Amino acid sequence: MTRIRFHQELDDLKHRILAMAGMAEQAIDLSVQAYAQRDPALCQRVLNNEGAINRAEREVDEFAIDLLAMQQPMAVDLRFILAVIKINADLERVGDQAVNIAQRVLNMIGLPASELPVDIPAMATKVRAMVRDALRSFIEGDTELAKHVLEGDDEIDAMNHEAFASLSQYMQSEPGNAAQALDALSVARNLERVADHATNIAEDVIFWVRGADVRHGAGQSLAGS
Amino acid sequence: MTRIRFHQELDDLKHRILAMAGMAEQAIDLSVQAYAQRDPALCQRVLNNEGAINRAEREVDEFAIDLLAMQQPMAVDLRFILAVIKINADLERVGDQAVNIAQRVLNMIGLPASELPVDIPAMATKVRAMVRDALRSFIEGDTELAKHVLEGDDEIDAMNHEAFASLSQYMQSEPGNAAQALDALSVARNLERVADHATNIAEDVIFWVRGADVRHGAGQSLAGS
Repeated sequence: MTRIRFHQELDDLKHRILAMAGMAEQAIDLSVQAYAQRDPALCQRVLNNEGAINRAEREVDEFAIDLLAMQQPMAVDLRFILAVIKINADLERVGDQAVNIAQRVLNMIGLPASELPVDIPAMATKVRAMVRDALRSFIEGDTELAKHVLEGDDEIDAMNHEAFASLSQYMQSEPGNAAQALDALSVARNLERVADHATNIAEDVIFWVRGADVRHGAGQSLAGS
Repeated sequence: MTRIRFHQELDDLKHRILAMAGMAEQAIDLSVQAYAQRDPALCQRVLNNEGAINRAEREVDEFAIDLLAMQQPMAVDLRFILAVIKINADLERVGDQAVNIAQRVLNMIGLPASELPVDIPAMATKVRAMVRDALRSFIEGDTELAKHVLEGDDEIDAMNHEAFASLSQYMQSEPGNAAQALDALSVARNLERVADHATNIAEDVIFWVRGADVRHGAGQSLAGS
């Protein structure tokens, strides 16, 4: 395989992982919309799409591993392919979170609607922005944007803790609505995990572009560089 | 680097990931013991060990990537190194689950003890067996044992669902104890996620040994082979 051909293959890999990303993003959007509208048909669409996301993950993984095996790439190309393998696993898990949310929403729809002390759509908007920015940082190889994504994670953690505190308080004062509150709690926690995956993707982008390992707070030292 | 030297390096990589596994297993054991004994000192040990697990993950990852870059291994060696990279990430997340459990236990200790309708130690025993078997299947390259691990996952999911049903029922009848019930629910969910990581590890072992991709139920077709 020529060098030009190899770079075409890398480009192909990038397009495949972006198609996979589009599916994961759509799943999250549908599940959050299903929550806001209490719409079982949207939940069902998320459940129906899970198989396609899982197949896409497997195909991207095989393609990436074949490239590693046949091309034995070095340095930045090796790191790029490893980053794709990791991002791919994170996107598949984002799809899983969307399925979890859709299942919770289906359960909520079967219960009386109640005024819960939690703003899921506000949390979802921030999480979606993190995912979008993480993917954009990957497309553009933009480590500044990736670092910005890392900074968003604490805010989502705080929102999740706040949701936990107010919903558990609510359950004690309104035990008859505990089931709905538990479902909302689960939705919030799944959104928080989606934000974790966006963070992982941003870390993988920085690893790819800089060869730096920014996990577990080591990224702080990059902030001023 | 000679071929012999390369196999020494692979052996070294295996020892490093097993040391990492030992740390993750210990963290889970301590957190579960902390739950059973309501012991804040054990929780604190889990929190104190998190940094060491994160450092070990980074070191294993760097070592594996250096091996890939310098040796450009093919076929089974390539798959082994990729499996180690994935198993490494799962073990670090097992450490995270242990930290989550320890934090919940610390919270529970601050609340009055209550008789909760959930058997966390029984669930923990099964989850620990899955992790142990997954790691043993890795050490011995035993795909039969790895397949056995995959079969355990449904049982843990069922236990988690049962915990959810009985604890949410309990919260409605005993709203004054809702906070403790929520903590126990969170412990059960974190154990279920540890079982997911054991499943991932078993899948990676099968991928390494057989070159087969058994994710997302594709493993069923291997069961009779």
